[in-house]
Amino acid sequence: MKQINIKALAQELNLSVSTISKALRDSYEISEETKHRVLEMAAKLNYTPNPYASSLRGKKSKNIAIVIPEVADSFFSQAINGIESVAKGKGYHVLICLTHENFENEQAILKEFQSGRVDGVLMSVSSETASGGHIQELIAKEVPVVFFDRALGEVPATRIVTDDFQSGYKATMHLIGQGCRNIAFLGVSSKLSISNDRMAGYRKAMEEKGLPFREIYCSSSPEENYTLIKEMLQQPDRPCGVLASVEKLATLVYQVCSDLQLNMPADVKLVCFSNLGIAAMLYPSLTTVTQPAFEMGKAAAAALLKLLEKKNTDPAGLNMVIPSELILRGSSL
Amino acid sequence: MKQINIKALAQELNLSVSTISKALRDSYEISEETKHRVLEMAAKLNYTPNPYASSLRGKKSKNIAIVIPEVADSFFSQAINGIESVAKGKGYHVLICLTHENFENEQAILKEFQSGRVDGVLMSVSSETASGGHIQELIAKEVPVVFFDRALGEVPATRIVTDDFQSGYKATMHLIGQGCRNIAFLGVSSKLSISNDRMAGYRKAMEEKGLPFREIYCSSSPEENYTLIKEMLQQPDRPCGVLASVEKLATLVYQVCSDLQLNMPADVKLVCFSNLGIAAMLYPSLTTVTQPAFEMGKAAAAALLKLLEKKNTDPAGLNMVIPSELILRGSSL
Repeated sequence: MKQINIKALAQELNLSVSTISKALRDSYEISEETKHRVLEMAAKLNYTPNPYASSLRGKKSKNIAIVIPEVADSFFSQAINGIESVAKGKGYHVLICLTHENFENEQAILKEFQSGRVDGVLMSVSSETASGGHIQELIAKEVPVVFFDRALGEVPATRIVTDDFQSGYKATMHLIGQGCRNIAFLGVSSKLSISNDRMAGYRKAMEEKGLPFREIYCSSSPEENYTLIKEMLQQPDRPCGVLASVEKLATLVYQVCSDLQLNMPADVKLVCFSNLGIAAMLYPSLTTVTQPAFEMGKAAAAALLKLLEKKNTDPAGLNMVIPSELILRGSSL
Repeated sequence: MKQINIKALAQELNLSVSTISKALRDSYEISEETKHRVLEMAAKLNYTPNPYASSLRGKKSKNIAIVIPEVADSFFSQAINGIESVAKGKGYHVLICLTHENFENEQAILKEFQSGRVDGVLMSVSSETASGGHIQELIAKEVPVVFFDRALGEVPATRIVTDDFQSGYKATMHLIGQGCRNIAFLGVSSKLSISNDRMAGYRKAMEEKGLPFREIYCSSSPEENYTLIKEMLQQPDRPCGVLASVEKLATLVYQVCSDLQLNMPADVKLVCFSNLGIAAMLYPSLTTVTQPAFEMGKAAAAALLKLLEKKNTDPAGLNMVIPSELILRGSSL
């Protein structure tokens, strides 16, 4: 099939290219009757406006991007649904791009967006991201960015987060209340806001009770993390409580306990930040800090659309905190 | 920051716009020394080529899209990783677009791609997709499409699938071997290739053993599906074996069994098509038909890149089948 352009439409209707163009832009200079004829023929010939041409004329792409580390995490898949529920209603297409927790991937994706492929970006930074030059460059090119969940402190943009500090504190207090004294915190990266805030909450609870910290940073390699967790649980002074800061670490704690024949919750009590729908069917069922993923996605998309519609011109953006919920189950009771 | 264009570069270097443009396109007409000066200044001023302008000149976007129903499914998240492992090496950006199992969403996404935003598409059709006009229109606009997992029979394009029929047959034979006579098949949609092929394998096994079919089509609503499964397991002649054709149905069978106080596997044996990493930690652990998701993603991306590089001009495409694996666990033993 041949690509139909405005010129072909003009020939078909015996009108000038400029008339067709104005009709398609719903210009007041063109009669309703002509507009109707043009639209009918455009539909018949399956004419699609060239977005690149439109973009050169300064129009918007009507695309927004979600830039996240991964999709194999129930938090992100629920947040995506929240974002799409808002964006679709406003006629935006949503593109998802994955960084795989890699800073260079994240830089390359944002660089690509500098040229106007998307109107705005919703992002959760990678665990390697320690500086925001690439994000600020994008904002400087007038592509607004809104953070959700994982924000970068130095970039003055709107951020929709959950109460990571409070949640870390509450989860740790729960483990202490269950009789744990030796509690380990499994973090993801010392560069990551959520990991640090959750750890700060853990530290505050441990400090209040005069208990020693025990913090382990996991990597993005499941094999390395399995080994780290196994070594930790093989030590004579192994922790009897574990607070895992991201979902993928929970699976590994279950695996290690099974392989070392440690009983959960008798030998090891576990609380994990996770939105897994299947948490209640695990053996034992998993105590979770469940984040308001869908709501965070909705709020982030709504904030971005406001920026795109120039309804919010505050450059520093807003800071919205939506609380998480501690759901007690068998792994810590 | 101001958007730097070719004109600004030209002014900065005191060269003509045409010289800059040719230098950036690595034209033989321009000396190596000038090219070097232009590239250095372009880097210094953070010049990004305008992709819309490039595209109007007939260049490629170097974007490929993955169009899938959802990401909250371990098959798709692993397949995405397989696709990206291939695409990244060839310098392609990968965009993910979700249909949420809705045919109109799928049509809108492909329509958008007709205008050249992406060079090619990897797709798994929605459960509502019964006809392929929207896919054929895209192919006619010279945007190649490769199916992975869920293909549409009527569209002559490359398809990378798994052995759904054989897997359905093997899983059913396993349940029969465990003493089940009354076995239900939970399908997704009568329009969906994978659901139909898996069901055909189930039927063949049941027929061979002279057992009656019992087939239920689930929807995309978890609430509706919960009710359907509950009604099925509340009947006096409830099935003692269940073969679920997609991952999200497994969670619901666990929930219903728990709510009805039915014991798995004593009262109900379950096999599910799933790639859940956590399947072994469920209670009871889940017997799965595990698909070669990562390999399917890799193969699909490799096939698409061949088409983009015009190394494969066979319009009907190839049909690759990568086998799945039946992994026996507690839910059916």
